[in-house]
Amino acid sequence: MIVLKIGGSRGIDLDAVCADVAALTKTGKQIVVMHGAGNEADALGDKLGTPAKHVTSPQGFTSRYTDYATLEIYVMAACGKINTFLVERLQKLGVNALGLSGVDGRLLEGTRKDAIRIVENGKQRILRDDFTGKVEKVNADLLRALLANGYVPVIAPLAISHQGDAMNIDGDRAAAMVAGALGAEQLIILTNVPGLLRNFPDESSLIMHIDKSRIEQSIDFAEGRMKKKVLGASEALRLGVSQVIFADGRTAEPLMRALEGKGTVID
Amino acid sequence: MIVLKIGGSRGIDLDAVCADVAALTKTGKQIVVMHGAGNEADALGDKLGTPAKHVTSPQGFTSRYTDYATLEIYVMAACGKINTFLVERLQKLGVNALGLSGVDGRLLEGTRKDAIRIVENGKQRILRDDFTGKVEKVNADLLRALLANGYVPVIAPLAISHQGDAMNIDGDRAAAMVAGALGAEQLIILTNVPGLLRNFPDESSLIMHIDKSRIEQSIDFAEGRMKKKVLGASEALRLGVSQVIFADGRTAEPLMRALEGKGTVID
Repeated sequence: MIVLKIGGSRGIDLDAVCADVAALTKTGKQIVVMHGAGNEADALGDKLGTPAKHVTSPQGFTSRYTDYATLEIYVMAACGKINTFLVERLQKLGVNALGLSGVDGRLLEGTRKDAIRIVENGKQRILRDDFTGKVEKVNADLLRALLANGYVPVIAPLAISHQGDAMNIDGDRAAAMVAGALGAEQLIILTNVPGLLRNFPDESSLIMHIDKSRIEQSIDFAEGRMKKKVLGASEALRLGVSQVIFADGRTAEPLMRALEGKGTVID
Repeated sequence: MIVLKIGGSRGIDLDAVCADVAALTKTGKQIVVMHGAGNEADALGDKLGTPAKHVTSPQGFTSRYTDYATLEIYVMAACGKINTFLVERLQKLGVNALGLSGVDGRLLEGTRKDAIRIVENGKQRILRDDFTGKVEKVNADLLRALLANGYVPVIAPLAISHQGDAMNIDGDRAAAMVAGALGAEQLIILTNVPGLLRNFPDESSLIMHIDKSRIEQSIDFAEGRMKKKVLGASEALRLGVSQVIFADGRTAEPLMRALEGKGTVID
């Protein structure tokens, strides 16, 4: 089984990705798709006069600050536009896709971080009323039941808190949790770069292989959002996923190329 | 089994409706929820500078004209905001709700009416590029599998065409198709009026009972959007649903009151 994370950034060729998903599912391969929402949510927030706010943790991880107004926008972009039209696109290619977010059937459950520590202008402060969380539990039975009935689950990056609040989550780390819970062999993360770069943004500095025993150290030279992807990879490997591949979602046959090892292979 | 349609108009007390759904599911009753999207989609369209366009057919039925830009807005409102937060609301009450639209797993499939005849200023003309359709086939197996596993399906009013296009559908008629396909005993349609009124908008002219043999004639005095609800009721009864009830969604215990026969009972 493959868990495929399709990044939410600009440039990813969704037609090419979906064509590969269709080709692979036709060979009988089981695939669970998880997608991002960043770019669409930002664009919708701009149009609605509520631009996205990104914050940086003391550890240097960036994330979206999600007050309730932002959560509504995020939900409309993630569960509405991206998820529905991704499912539609796959259905047109004969894939029996079925969209869910982590709120549905408590698919992705975790703790809401209603107070987060951020760094702003070099100073630390606490933000409250944030609808962001971390996935701790995956309803793998639901995914297995859907897969057994021939559906391809397409998951939007939201989770539900133990108290029942919808919350924004990091899609890469959620995909790692899903891959771990399903015992997937591979987690493929498609982004708009060729993989992990030693000297970002120099694409010729692509790291082709990382030994899983050394993944933690790679976080140091991962840049910006790539840090969370490396964190996700490390979590997936710890949960028993055999291989994580970061690959380029902008090329022809992006998933096939990833499976051929083009990108950063971590195992 | 009950199929519950929650209207998309202003005034419906969602807290009260969801509390009733929670109370009923706790007694072991199986419920499938279908919701509308009209009001939210209109509000979002206004905010995004793409106000909704409603058209009237030569037969006097009103419907939403859905070009591609309107479809995107409709999807964000219906599958994004309304569906997700309705699922969240039910989850907070201990109901294991799971949101879907008709696009997911081809739950609701039908023919796209890409050319529709409308009446404008007394003249008929044809509109093209409309993403609207009529549900002809329900994937009842998917709903039965979810119900058997303890989930309460919450369905957003979209369908998928035979060619794989997402399309706007009428929620009342779709709920009728779902009720028929599942062999539900009852279809409950909650709106912001007490039921079918003989002299709209005089709420004291509520029709308390309609014999199912006379439902077709009731379309004549149904007003505006109520026409489609009566059409849906007639379709549900023809498909073997025992009873259809139009009831007031603005009151306390709206579903319980409907089940006590308060509203317009058609059987």
